[in-house]
Formats: sequence, C-alpha cells, structure tokens
Amino acid sequence: MNKKNEAITDMNVDFAQWYTDVVKKSELIDYSPVRGCVILRPYGYGIWELIQKQLDAMFKEGGHENVYMPMFLPKSLLQKEADHVEGFAPEVLTITHAGDEELVDPLCIRPTSEVLFCEHFSNTIQSYRDLPKLYNQWCSVVRWEKTTRPFLRTTEFLWQEGHTAHASEEEAQKEAKTMLDVYTDFFENVLAIPVIRGRKSEKEKFAGAVTTYTIESMMHDGKALQSGTTHYLGDGFAKAFDITFTDKENKLTHVHQTSWGVSTRMIGGIIMVHGDNNGLVLPPKIAPIQVAIIPIAQNKEGVLEAVTNLHEEIKSQFRVKLDISDKTPGFKFSEYEMKGVPLRVELGPKDIEAGNAVLVRRDNGEKKVVSLSNIEEEIEKTLEEIQQGLYNNAKEAKEAKTYSVATLQQFEEVITQKPGFIKAMWCESGECEEKIKKDFSATIRCLPYEQEIIGDTCVCCGEKAEMQAIFARAY
Amino acid sequence: MNKKNEAITDMNVDFAQWYTDVVKKSELIDYSPVRGCVILRPYGYGIWELIQKQLDAMFKEGGHENVYMPMFLPKSLLQKEADHVEGFAPEVLTITHAGDEELVDPLCIRPTSEVLFCEHFSNTIQSYRDLPKLYNQWCSVVRWEKTTRPFLRTTEFLWQEGHTAHASEEEAQKEAKTMLDVYTDFFENVLAIPVIRGRKSEKEKFAGAVTTYTIESMMHDGKALQSGTTHYLGDGFAKAFDITFTDKENKLTHVHQTSWGVSTRMIGGIIMVHGDNNGLVLPPKIAPIQVAIIPIAQNKEGVLEAVTNLHEEIKSQFRVKLDISDKTPGFKFSEYEMKGVPLRVELGPKDIEAGNAVLVRRDNGEKKVVSLSNIEEEIEKTLEEIQQGLYNNAKEAKEAKTYSVATLQQFEEVITQKPGFIKAMWCESGECEEKIKKDFSATIRCLPYEQEIIGDTCVCCGEKAEMQAIFARAY
Repeated sequence: MNKKNEAITDMNVDFAQWYTDVVKKSELIDYSPVRGCVILRPYGYGIWELIQKQLDAMFKEGGHENVYMPMFLPKSLLQKEADHVEGFAPEVLTITHAGDEELVDPLCIRPTSEVLFCEHFSNTIQSYRDLPKLYNQWCSVVRWEKTTRPFLRTTEFLWQEGHTAHASEEEAQKEAKTMLDVYTDFFENVLAIPVIRGRKSEKEKFAGAVTTYTIESMMHDGKALQSGTTHYLGDGFAKAFDITFTDKENKLTHVHQTSWGVSTRMIGGIIMVHGDNNGLVLPPKIAPIQVAIIPIAQNKEGVLEAVTNLHEEIKSQFRVKLDISDKTPGFKFSEYEMKGVPLRVELGPKDIEAGNAVLVRRDNGEKKVVSLSNIEEEIEKTLEEIQQGLYNNAKEAKEAKTYSVATLQQFEEVITQKPGFIKAMWCESGECEEKIKKDFSATIRCLPYEQEIIGDTCVCCGEKAEMQAIFARAY
Repeated sequence: MNKKNEAITDMNVDFAQWYTDVVKKSELIDYSPVRGCVILRPYGYGIWELIQKQLDAMFKEGGHENVYMPMFLPKSLLQKEADHVEGFAPEVLTITHAGDEELVDPLCIRPTSEVLFCEHFSNTIQSYRDLPKLYNQWCSVVRWEKTTRPFLRTTEFLWQEGHTAHASEEEAQKEAKTMLDVYTDFFENVLAIPVIRGRKSEKEKFAGAVTTYTIESMMHDGKALQSGTTHYLGDGFAKAFDITFTDKENKLTHVHQTSWGVSTRMIGGIIMVHGDNNGLVLPPKIAPIQVAIIPIAQNKEGVLEAVTNLHEEIKSQFRVKLDISDKTPGFKFSEYEMKGVPLRVELGPKDIEAGNAVLVRRDNGEKKVVSLSNIEEEIEKTLEEIQQGLYNNAKEAKEAKTYSVATLQQFEEVITQKPGFIKAMWCESGECEEKIKKDFSATIRCLPYEQEIIGDTCVCCGEKAEMQAIFARAY
C-alpha cells in the first residue's frame, strides 16, 4: 500500500501525531471532559471485549476464578506493606469526605488491589485444603499521571489483575512463570505481536515483589512497550497481612503469593506494531469487524440482493459488516482501511455475472478474485494468512532493529541513530543501570530468559559481567 | 424439604437474618474492610457472569453496542441538569485532591453516567444519519448510602446502564418501553421471577426523567423489590448539554433520550424469591453449578471411575461439579443444598451395578432413579422442570399475597397483617401518596400497565380516582 490517507499524519514524519490521529479517526476513543481519561467508543471497546473473552477462557482453562473486589482501599490497609505503599502513594486519589461526612479512615481509589486480596485471603484461608487460591478480576484502576496518552497511559484504565496464594515458594514461582507464558501465547498467537520474555531488574520491579517477570514488545518506532507483567510476591504480603495456613504437618505457615496483569495498553501496542499510513491494521482474531462487504454500483439490478445473500451466508462464521449506505465505494474503502478491517469483499455487477467476488487484504493490499461458490473457505484461509503475516512482519521488524553492542560508545551510536532494542552485557550494578538511564533515557527492559552471552564485560563500566540485558527507550 | 439447615436462621422467624446468613454461608460474598462494600466471591461473581452473558446477548440482539466511560464526572458537568444533580448530589463521593494537587474542578465518582453520555453525544451527533445511538456499559457505580445490605444496597455496585439518543419522542418512548420488555423477559424466563410492569409516580421517578418505567417483583416476605427501571428522558438533557442534529428537512433539532439499568441487586431478588430454609435455590439458567455429582461409598471399587466417566460425559452440556473430596456424602449434600445447586446426582455401588443413578432436585427434594444410558436427557428435562417450577411457585406466591382494597381501614389491616402487594385506586395527588407513605411506610411501586379498575374513589381521600396503583413496603 503506497498511497497514504491524507486524514492522518505520516507515521515516518511524526509517529506520536500519527498515533493520536489514528486512535481518533478510527473511532477507537474520544477524549473525555476528565483529565487523562478517555472514552472507549464501540469500536475500541469491541476490541477489548474480544481480548477479554479470549484471555478469560485461557485463565479459566488454568483453573482461575473471577471475583470482584471494591474499588476503594482504606488508607490504613494500603499502608500495611511498606514497599508497596511507597511505590503507589504518589499516584493515588484519596477521598476524605463522603457527602458532608468526614471519613475517619480516608478511602483510596485502587491503583491495584493486592491489599484487598490479602485481607480477603487472610479471612478465608485456614488450611492447606484452601490452597491454592487462583483469583482474577476484570476492573478499572486509577493512577494519577502527569502526562497521559490514549491506551498507553491514562488516569483510569481497564485491566485484569490476577491474585493467587500458594502453599510453597516453588508453586508460586511456577504460577508467576506460567502466567507469563499464557501472556506470551496470547500476544504471539492472538495479537500477532512477538515478545521478549524475561525478568525485571531490582530497580524496575513491582513495588512489593520479590521477582517481576515481563514481556516486552517493540513498536514501529523501535521503542519498547512493557506489555504484561507477573510478580512473585514471596511471603512479604502474607506476613504484613497475617495470611497463614495449617500445612499437612499441622504447622502454621505463611502463604506465597503472585499477582499479574495486562491492560487496555495492549490496544496501544496493536496500533503501534501493526498500523500503517492508512490507519489501523487489526489482527483478525481481535478485529470487531473481520470482513467488510462493499457493493459496487449498488443501484444496478441484482447487486443489493447479491451482497445481502453473501452477508447472510457468511455472518455466522465471521464478524461481518455489510455497508449499503449511500457513500461511494471509494469512501467506504478508506473508512474500513482506517479502521483496520482485515479483509474487504467487493461485489459488483460484473463479479456477480461471473459468479465471483474480489477479496482485498488490508495488510498488504493484495487483491484476489475468488468464486462465490467457495468464498467461505477463501475468506477463512485469507484471514489465517493475514494473522500469520502480521506476526511474521512484526517479528522481522523487531529482529531488524535489535542490535548487539559491547561499549558505551557503540551504545550511544545505536540509541541516537537506530532506535530499537540493544543487547548488551551488564555487571548487575544499579549505578551502571542508572547512568545509562540518565545519559541515554534508556532502561533495562528485561534480563531475557534466553541469555545470549555476547561478551564478559559490562557495556557501561567495563567490569566483569555475566548477565545479558535488553536496553531500550520505552513508552 | 421439611428439614432445615441449622447453620442458618429460620426464614419464617427472622427473614433479614436468614438473608444475611445465606449470602455468607453460600459463599456468594464476603464483607470487605470498606464500609458498605462487599466482595463478590467466585460463586457470587459466577452468577453475575451468567447474568451478564445472557443480558448482553439480548441487548446486542436489539442493536446496542457496549462502550466504556470514565468513572469520574467533573462536578461542573454533573450540575448541568438541575433535577438530575438535585437527585444525586447527597450520595456522591467527591475528590478534591489528587496527590498534593488541589483540583480546580473536583471529580465526582459516577452515581450513574447520564452526563458523560450526554457530553459524548453532544460531540459525536451531527446529523439524523448519526441516530439512533444505542449504547450500553457494564461498570460499577457508587452511591454513599446510610444503611447497606449485600446486593440490595451497597455503596459500590455492579450494573449495566443503557443510554440512547433518538430523532423523535416517539422513537425514544418506544425504546424505553422495549427495554422494559427485555428486562421482563429476562426476569421471567431466565431468573424465574414474575414481575409487574408499570410506570412510576411523579414522586418516585428518576431524577431528570420525564417518565420512569419499572418492573417490581415480590420477595418471600411480601415486600417489593424494584428490579429494573427504564427512563424516557425527553429532551431536557439534550437542551442542557446542547445535543442537536440536522434532521431530514435540514432543521436543527434536539435529540430525545433514554437510559435504563439493572444491577447486582437482581441477585438479592433471586435469593429472596427462591431461597428456603436450606439456603439458596438457583434457577438452572443462572446457576454456576447446575449439577453436582456426588459419589456414594467412593472408596468401593468402580465408584470413582463411574463418577469420573459420568462427569466426562455430561460436562460439555451442563455446568457440572464432581466432588470427590474426602468429606462425607451427607456433608456434601448440605453444602450443595446451601449453594442452591439445582440438581444432585448420586452414584454408588448399587446404582452402578443396576446401571442407574439417582437425581435429587434442590427445589422440592424429589428423588428419581434414572438409567445411566439416557441420563443426559433426564438431566436436561429435569433442569427445565425446575426452571419452570420455580417460576410457577413464585407466581403463585405473588398472587396469593396480592390484595385489592378500597378504603384506608382495609389498607391498614392488610399492610400490618398480611404483607404483600396492595391494589387500590388512587386520585393521583401527591398528598395521598405522601400520607400513605408516612402512615404505613408503603409506597406506590407502580401504576401498572394492566389496569384493574376496582372502584372509582381514591383509597386515601375518597375523591374521584381513575388510576389503579400497586402499593407495598419495599426494599
């Protein structure tokens, strides 16, 4: 697709503005009168519903159950785990008055719900028979942010938060890693976004966690997006909240916990990984409309009947939109391109006469004439090709923008001239991590599972290093 | 079922305490450290998920689309429609500070979201081509209440709120009535709860509405539960928020709006309509577990294998729980009775030898020996019978406790001695409505669609009356 939709900024000229244009023009969101909060319009919320449905099934497959906790946390409760409150306090909205009544214990709006789950676990777990507890909730959380961008960082955002309690460290660690695998599977096979799995450095881990695992993905502009995290919380929360159980040897023991979450931020990732100069490009598995049927010369005899029949025929198998509005076909083409609909079916008098239809792929613009007699199989096959093609393209782009560097000088060259992921050795000192952050605005995205030992000295200080890290600038 | 579970209070002795015992013992909820807010545990949230799934499909069938609006409303926005703000102001939680920052325009936590939808409509509706807008959202709202009870009245509660905009009064009125029909269908055919449809008096209608329609149901103790409402909002909000469109004659016109909602309060209704002295009784259509399989003498050869096979065989068709824990069968029986599981399947060595299983109905305790060879059909048929039976019982109970009265003296006799619904004529004056409320704590639940003209004078003042009302004490 060489042409460019004039309604949006060129992504290679101003990527940030392109992003803003796309989220608005494709009708994913509208700005709201509340600072830092957006409205998810039907098309944007439709993507979220498809994400929810598929992820929720994966969670339940693993034995997790959904619950709902209050959106408020008493301030006193939030303060129980010291690291946790320190991490979140600056972002928390607090309610001191309800109507005319002054609250003795002010209420915080949840920035995350560890403390409520802990309190509930403390009340409901007595014996090893009550374990594990595998809970999840779908809700919104609130973090007061200085600068916000639709999907990537908003004051209120939708997410899921998993909270589990286990009898042993081993089991809880396994849960944290398994859920990272579930996220990886979902990103790669549903969102068509390749990820790097790893753990966070001490500096970057979740407030209150022993270990934070993360999946990091690369956006079109080479920047990283932290896409999902899982945390092994150890027994720190259990000690602060007195969550104990009687084990099989009749000994009172603290549980080990995990928490994990992904959010509407994923939609920002979809936009920035797959989008192009004509707007959004959606992977078929999360596209609210998978197929747009557009009649050509719809006033000619037989055309409306043919598109209506086709719609009836395929609508139970795919998510289909038949557009018989009085707009021109060209106008409709741009509209569904902007919305990233994976496949367009054109049907005009000549096609009908020949018993054919034209399929046009959103991802690469490829046109294909297919027989109406086996159009369902053709659509199915093409949607699968698009899904796989988007993943392959994203993977190639990520690999092309991943660089191995050995010295600070090389680091500087790459980060300033070729934005992407930097593989480098790291001595594991906070000082080197901090220096790189300060000098280059780049952070350690993760210490990848798949270690590629490309040297034996730290990229920053030159001392001995045994750990390979991924550095990048990030959203 | 004559026996009574000793873990809960007798419903005929103390209905309020029975209710509290049941919600807790059946593990629907747990109390939270936040005043007036409860935790929906997996079993309680599981009912909500089944409600959501079925209602959402009905909304979408009618062309409605889901969106998500921020949970905050700027205070200035809430104040735009005078009646609306007056109705909600006393219950609204307000945030004046975010971190250290004082907010110029304080944020209210939504008690309902009319004003955000209005603002969005105002920004997105231009022409008659943009109409109707048929939106819905699933979310939680917050109303600061003095006294709270699980499901019936909590500070935060889960609900859906529909918001629509139309080109004409006629179309909007039709939408408000159609959605009341959808709620009626859902209550009667899914929740097995009969309802009375009608409209609210001026005093009882929604703050900002022209007309409020309601469905009212009767609880076991004869009190009414307002179960769902739909509102025709007229063009008052449209004028306050400047929501206009260019109509087909190219004239600038205000839209006409509706809103409508049902909440987790429905779960309170299910408990108080169907429950009994052994705990919860759930209609099969919203039961998280429809069938509990309980092995008898599970250590005997072949028993575990047989229950496992049965579970495998039926689990794709029904929501089934196989319980092979080391508790006694009797203990399990009470547990699933408390949880209101519609059907229990018992399978022991003798049954297996005979190729049979025993089905036990939760609603009436009926036992039936069925052949394992056609157990799926038997279960399906029995679940349908239970669903229908629960509805029939509830309908009979409601009719038995509905009384027609002509004078205030009769009114007093009935309301103090035979709690239930009172049909009476009403002169449509606010004074009579207020007097009855003050003297008897009874309110006009609705002016029913199906008017039964049982006289021509007002039950209160004796003046001329043409309107039949339903009076009751209510939750």
